[in-house]
Amino acid sequence: MSKYKKIKEECYKANMQLPGLGLVLFTFGNVSVADRGKKVFAIKPSGVPYIELSPEKMVIVDFDGNTIEGELRPSSDTNTHAVLYKNWEQIGSIVHTHSTYATSWAQALRNIPIYGTTHADHNTVDIPCASPMSDEMIKGDYEYETGYQIINCFKEKALNYTEVEMMIVGNHAPFTWGKNADKAVYNAAVLEQIAQMAWLTEQINPNAPRLKEALIKKHFERKHGPDSYYGQ
Amino acid sequence: MSKYKKIKEECYKANMQLPGLGLVLFTFGNVSVADRGKKVFAIKPSGVPYIELSPEKMVIVDFDGNTIEGELRPSSDTNTHAVLYKNWEQIGSIVHTHSTYATSWAQALRNIPIYGTTHADHNTVDIPCASPMSDEMIKGDYEYETGYQIINCFKEKALNYTEVEMMIVGNHAPFTWGKNADKAVYNAAVLEQIAQMAWLTEQINPNAPRLKEALIKKHFERKHGPDSYYGQ
Amino acid sequence: MSKYKKIKEECYKANMQLPGLGLVLFTFGNVSVADRGKKVFAIKPSGVPYIELSPEKMVIVDFDGNTIEGELRPSSDTNTHAVLYKNWEQIGSIVHTHSTYATSWAQALRNIPIYGTTHADHNTVDIPCASPMSDEMIKGDYEYETGYQIINCFKEKALNYTEVEMMIVGNHAPFTWGKNADKAVYNAAVLEQIAQMAWLTEQINPNAPRLKEALIKKHFERKHGPDSYYGQ
Amino acid sequence: MSKYKKIKEECYKANMQLPGLGLVLFTFGNVSVADRGKKVFAIKPSGVPYIELSPEKMVIVDFDGNTIEGELRPSSDTNTHAVLYKNWEQIGSIVHTHSTYATSWAQALRNIPIYGTTHADHNTVDIPCASPMSDEMIKGDYEYETGYQIINCFKEKALNYTEVEMMIVGNHAPFTWGKNADKAVYNAAVLEQIAQMAWLTEQINPNAPRLKEALIKKHFERKHGPDSYYGQ
Repeated sequence: MSKYKKIKEECYKANMQLPGLGLVLFTFGNVSVADRGKKVFAIKPSGVPYIELSPEKMVIVDFDGNTIEGELRPSSDTNTHAVLYKNWEQIGSIVHTHSTYATSWAQALRNIPIYGTTHADHNTVDIPCASPMSDEMIKGDYEYETGYQIINCFKEKALNYTEVEMMIVGNHAPFTWGKNADKAVYNAAVLEQIAQMAWLTEQINPNAPRLKEALIKKHFERKHGPDSYYGQ
Repeated sequence: MSKYKKIKEECYKANMQLPGLGLVLFTFGNVSVADRGKKVFAIKPSGVPYIELSPEKMVIVDFDGNTIEGELRPSSDTNTHAVLYKNWEQIGSIVHTHSTYATSWAQALRNIPIYGTTHADHNTVDIPCASPMSDEMIKGDYEYETGYQIINCFKEKALNYTEVEMMIVGNHAPFTWGKNADKAVYNAAVLEQIAQMAWLTEQINPNAPRLKEALIKKHFERKHGPDSYYGQ
Repeated sequence: MSKYKKIKEECYKANMQLPGLGLVLFTFGNVSVADRGKKVFAIKPSGVPYIELSPEKMVIVDFDGNTIEGELRPSSDTNTHAVLYKNWEQIGSIVHTHSTYATSWAQALRNIPIYGTTHADHNTVDIPCASPMSDEMIKGDYEYETGYQIINCFKEKALNYTEVEMMIVGNHAPFTWGKNADKAVYNAAVLEQIAQMAWLTEQINPNAPRLKEALIKKHFERKHGPDSYYGQ
Repeated sequence: MSKYKKIKEECYKANMQLPGLGLVLFTFGNVSVADRGKKVFAIKPSGVPYIELSPEKMVIVDFDGNTIEGELRPSSDTNTHAVLYKNWEQIGSIVHTHSTYATSWAQALRNIPIYGTTHADHNTVDIPCASPMSDEMIKGDYEYETGYQIINCFKEKALNYTEVEMMIVGNHAPFTWGKNADKAVYNAAVLEQIAQMAWLTEQINPNAPRLKEALIKKHFERKHGPDSYYGQ
């Protein structure tokens, strides 16, 4: 039996949640789950329909992108996941989808403004949109560079990946993450909902103001921080 | 056996209706049901997934927000519910969701104009949007103040909570209520439908006029008042 | 056994199709089915949830709006149906819904322009929107007058109800009809689809032209008229 | 037993996928599957509800549009399929739908701009929209001319049908194709998703730029060409 059984099963279950949440068409998405102790992660094989997936088919890859175990080729986005695990040491799972509304904001090359408390319950900032890659980076190791595109976006905007667990890659699509698979998948669904409501908000009132600072702070603290009082 | 069994079951059933009506993502919503005789209400515990809920897990709280019975922490919005029950003596149930269209109007800080008879069948006025709270109120007992924000909105607009059973809190999301849980949940779904159609109406015709007074009056009287002739 | 068993069953089945087609929320819709020989029609009772309906609960009404058989009160829109059956002698069934997109065009007080062949497969004209009723008509027998509002709209626009089997009542919502219940329900779903695509067409290109005459004629003749070659 | 059993079954299965993918309302779509060796294709019968379809009911037609086997009349769009099979010798299956978003772009008479990598994963160009037919072509053999309208569109734009497997016919609706039925149906669903996101992208940012060339090239090569590394 594989010594990676636990993350393979978690990875399988997390991938299988995506269609039910309306976040993927066909195979346009992938979830990975890391084992920090073993310095590897499990990820969906490339281009395999969800209906044919099983825990055994998950591919084990190290943080440099080398396949460690598995008969199938890993997701074509594997190197992006590897870069993020290597550089952001506190994340345990990553989700990438092409969900409709978040992807449309990415294609529009705009950060998603914080318009309400649904957003503030999860982030105190606009959802960051990473600028498109330079042509040189594109011609290089593209998926590897996508990882750095995400990391550089957070550096430039002075964001902390443990506080902001979602973003969109300009021209491309969303990435979310978390301490485990459930949180990363949850973040992917939350981002899609926030993206849809931000679009509708601007449709209803093109001059809608960003949420005021006091409310941003209050709602975030309800769910996070030492005095949080949301959940059990 | 709990002496609050009846409202716990009603509260459980009402909460479980929300996902099927498409009004909540994850735990972004809560229903409470009051027992006016015992001066308490049952409310969903905080942050517990719908799939794990049961009647026994509902929390009993008094109209000052004190937990009377229950092992779980009540919804973080509990004090808002408590304020409404204490001040509005004829309501038996309250629903709070972050449903997509109603929340987008709330984020846009606009009242929802009355554009058609679907709206007029339920209300004779635009759906009121409460102005965002002052920074001082936010820094105080936030959920308690949200209750007063709603009550003050109705006072300022001279609205009667027994006639208008739905509203949106600016920057935040909708609240609806009714004499019992079925009516409060019904109102939450109706509000979402009205919100979606009002948005579409403005998209199709930016100069669409508000419904004329004679039609507002006629449709409301069909469903309400002494000469109503809708239903059995 | 009721001598109206056949139309009661057809009416029941037709009403039950509406939720599955996404055309109604709660009880916001009704279908009636006529028996031309007996000069009556079966219609849904007022305000009864779809889940509680049964063929026996359908109400039998004559073309002047008098209840002939049935223990429940008929739909509040019954007089509108009665007027249409009495004046338009070739229709066998009527459907009224508050479906989202068609209702939004009605609220926007605009005819739905003919933008493509999906529309032309069913109608050679813009879907007509009846002007809002005069205040005097509203204060009179409202549902009865709604019937005349529809008939007058067709007279003013010189439309033939056997060729154009769908329309929207300004400020209110759509009505469709047909030789039988299947066709009337089909038309209600088609209208909703046409309404959604016409809205999107204008969003994508505010200067989108109406469909050219030659195409309108061609597509309509494919499905209708002596040389039709659609279907079996 | 029919010697066309294989393509009849493939054709049946492919047609039955359309409702589940949300691409058709009622019978507004059809799939055909070719047997290149026998120079025929199987196609859905005209106007038959999906629920009543069976492999045996598929109609066999040659590349000139003559019915070879089958008791039902073939789809009214049959001649369009025939023209495409006759002129584009490498396609094995064709899908025609009136899917909501793709049809709305067709009605808007616009090519669908390439705004992101979801699009670039499948095409390096804007999705072409064929100009409406001349009145003379419409009055002629309409469905036959629709086939040439599609072929001429590709000639004028210097597109290769083996690289671009999807397009929209102005005023009408989308056509997609592929080497087999699974690919053609996949393309129909992908086109609908691309069409929805392109619309949303323009809503969110009316000045959204087309995807830069380097990214178009990179994403297309990931899935296609000699160095592709997507899938197994």
